[in-house]
Amino acid sequence: MSEIRLARRAAKLSTNFPAPHFPSELGPDVIPFDSGFAAPQLLPDLTEFAHAALNTHRAETLQYSPTHGQPELRGWLAGLMNEDGCALTPDHLLIVNGAKHGLELICKLLLDEGDAIVVTAPTYFTAIPIFRSFGVEFIEIGQDDDGIDIAALEVVLAQRVAQGQALPKLIYNVADFHNPTGATMPIERRKALIDLAERLGIFVVEDTPYRRVRFEGETIASLKALDLTGNVFHLGTFSKLVAPGLRIGWVAADTALIARLIQLKADGGSSPLVQRIIYEFGRSPAFAAHIERVQSVYRERRDRIVAAVRRELPDAVLAVPEGGYYVWLTLPAQVDGDALAADAAARGVNLIPGSKFFASGGDTTTPRNHIRLSYSYATPEQIDEGVRRLAISYRTIAG
Amino acid sequence: MSEIRLARRAAKLSTNFPAPHFPSELGPDVIPFDSGFAAPQLLPDLTEFAHAALNTHRAETLQYSPTHGQPELRGWLAGLMNEDGCALTPDHLLIVNGAKHGLELICKLLLDEGDAIVVTAPTYFTAIPIFRSFGVEFIEIGQDDDGIDIAALEVVLAQRVAQGQALPKLIYNVADFHNPTGATMPIERRKALIDLAERLGIFVVEDTPYRRVRFEGETIASLKALDLTGNVFHLGTFSKLVAPGLRIGWVAADTALIARLIQLKADGGSSPLVQRIIYEFGRSPAFAAHIERVQSVYRERRDRIVAAVRRELPDAVLAVPEGGYYVWLTLPAQVDGDALAADAAARGVNLIPGSKFFASGGDTTTPRNHIRLSYSYATPEQIDEGVRRLAISYRTIAG
Repeated sequence: MSEIRLARRAAKLSTNFPAPHFPSELGPDVIPFDSGFAAPQLLPDLTEFAHAALNTHRAETLQYSPTHGQPELRGWLAGLMNEDGCALTPDHLLIVNGAKHGLELICKLLLDEGDAIVVTAPTYFTAIPIFRSFGVEFIEIGQDDDGIDIAALEVVLAQRVAQGQALPKLIYNVADFHNPTGATMPIERRKALIDLAERLGIFVVEDTPYRRVRFEGETIASLKALDLTGNVFHLGTFSKLVAPGLRIGWVAADTALIARLIQLKADGGSSPLVQRIIYEFGRSPAFAAHIERVQSVYRERRDRIVAAVRRELPDAVLAVPEGGYYVWLTLPAQVDGDALAADAAARGVNLIPGSKFFASGGDTTTPRNHIRLSYSYATPEQIDEGVRRLAISYRTIAG
Repeated sequence: MSEIRLARRAAKLSTNFPAPHFPSELGPDVIPFDSGFAAPQLLPDLTEFAHAALNTHRAETLQYSPTHGQPELRGWLAGLMNEDGCALTPDHLLIVNGAKHGLELICKLLLDEGDAIVVTAPTYFTAIPIFRSFGVEFIEIGQDDDGIDIAALEVVLAQRVAQGQALPKLIYNVADFHNPTGATMPIERRKALIDLAERLGIFVVEDTPYRRVRFEGETIASLKALDLTGNVFHLGTFSKLVAPGLRIGWVAADTALIARLIQLKADGGSSPLVQRIIYEFGRSPAFAAHIERVQSVYRERRDRIVAAVRRELPDAVLAVPEGGYYVWLTLPAQVDGDALAADAAARGVNLIPGSKFFASGGDTTTPRNHIRLSYSYATPEQIDEGVRRLAISYRTIAG
């Protein structure tokens, strides 16, 4: 009996999760366009902050810590978000072990098996198996350069109501520098999404890993800043702005919902040592200087990969992202991104085919003529060489 | 609709979870017998290990890391467990964010709503809300000084079979220095438990936070060391041996089950920084010296509290634990531990009444004449003073 149940449960897990390769696993000639790893020269020197954390603050950093997080860190984050247009107190914040952990807690709070949720098509691929493990029904909604197609969403929701189906429990979205498309929602689109969600009583989960990795243009109000009813869960992380290895993120939400998430966070608290290191780094002058370096290094790489794609792959359509880690290439309809990725891998270029970013997961409806290229870890020289090789693959596949 | 679902879900959460007070919340005159916090003077100096982790190993500790954990740490842990009688490879190990996180992953893998599980009565109170959040039916089995009552368990399981009820999915137990009773299972009892579980195909979850916090007597083979069929999940942690704030633990299990747990561990990996600090500390000479200090300090406190209870509370029955953090007092049947805890709190002595350690959760069947005293955080002087005040409460309550 146990084996049957285990098999059923395992079937709920994603089988097509395309884990990026770790840099240490790669040969010297391999070009990693697949990963969202940080550029090594951007990994900050945290030595002095760790020294303070382990000495001055030892009784805090090596003891149990509050489940909801270190109070000073929560206060600092509330301040950062309020400078960014929100109106939060520290009680609106829950510290978690990275944004994925926050997403899992939100799922645990909101979802029952069979519930529907809305995701964009394409969407962040790591979120797909998390949602799938809760047994959800995916409602995939298309996007344009301004993000999720609100009109299409309204139609689908109206159809569900007409057919007596339950509304989705939540809408998951990356409004800033979307992964994988790079699209950023303008303010009008954001307001329309919030308005729709509030009207229908559907929660919005806003994932913001790249929000401060902006290269140009004006910051646009976050969905949380537009949220007047407490309908939005905001996920934040230090992975893309400071370092992936910190494994600390946060959820900002209505205080009553945060209180329920705390009950579900049964991990004995997130690392107080790492929380203190982040807080000491965050309030030091090194933090602003670090953000400037992050923006500068990734802006250069974004420019480099856009130029290389335009030079080497003129058939590819790409919208230039104003921030983030990725460019999303739309190839002619007959080109199979999976085959292209396989051929490129044989030439030492790792990338993730677009089909992996669709919750439909490779069925016949999944578009196959996309690929995602990450420019965060590859050097400018690797970017040139990688796109050159990719163009050889493209000519091989496209014939 | 969302509100109804949320309310139903919230009802699954424990409402009687007695979170211990944080030391920083306590007045100077308050005596903390409630918490399993570490003695402050035992929090190790990890500065040099953090320095190495953040410099020599920066490209590892600040990048994404493998979901299953840092390879050298897993290898070292396999070695530690093999010295302790197991036969494991690193692939039998999964690094998690503390043992509670490991327990939650095991629940997610094995349990469906309505499944039965076996716990001791009493059991580790923090595990109760974790299990409850999965909607389980608790089968509570009594204990004696040698741990869980195997004969009683056999009777209950035979009854379930006779009545056509499903067998429990797992048996959760703390075999070494049980929390809260302090009992340690002798080898024969362990073998009987493993034999029963294997015969019936029920998983065993062995939680071992105190295993190396042994003051005297011979180490007894862990349940994992006795497991020949891969039926045992072993939970380990550094919280009680090194420092609670590290938030790193591990699961040791059959490799096929570990592979499934990795799929469910959607957190982007446990902190590679803390994993590296632990590994560097663990392989340094400081580690063995630290364990000796831990054993020595807590042995002294164990002796102090046992003497104080015998002197001040001669009506209390207690078995002297050979390790761990707690003594469990059985009071005359008419004494209400909840009332005693409330009176003691009014006198500045925090402790957890025994009723909180029963999964039945305060219904009429829950024994009420127990209390648990932790001696890990209170100083020897506080132990004397705390038990003196507790005796005043006892005389007040017992009349």
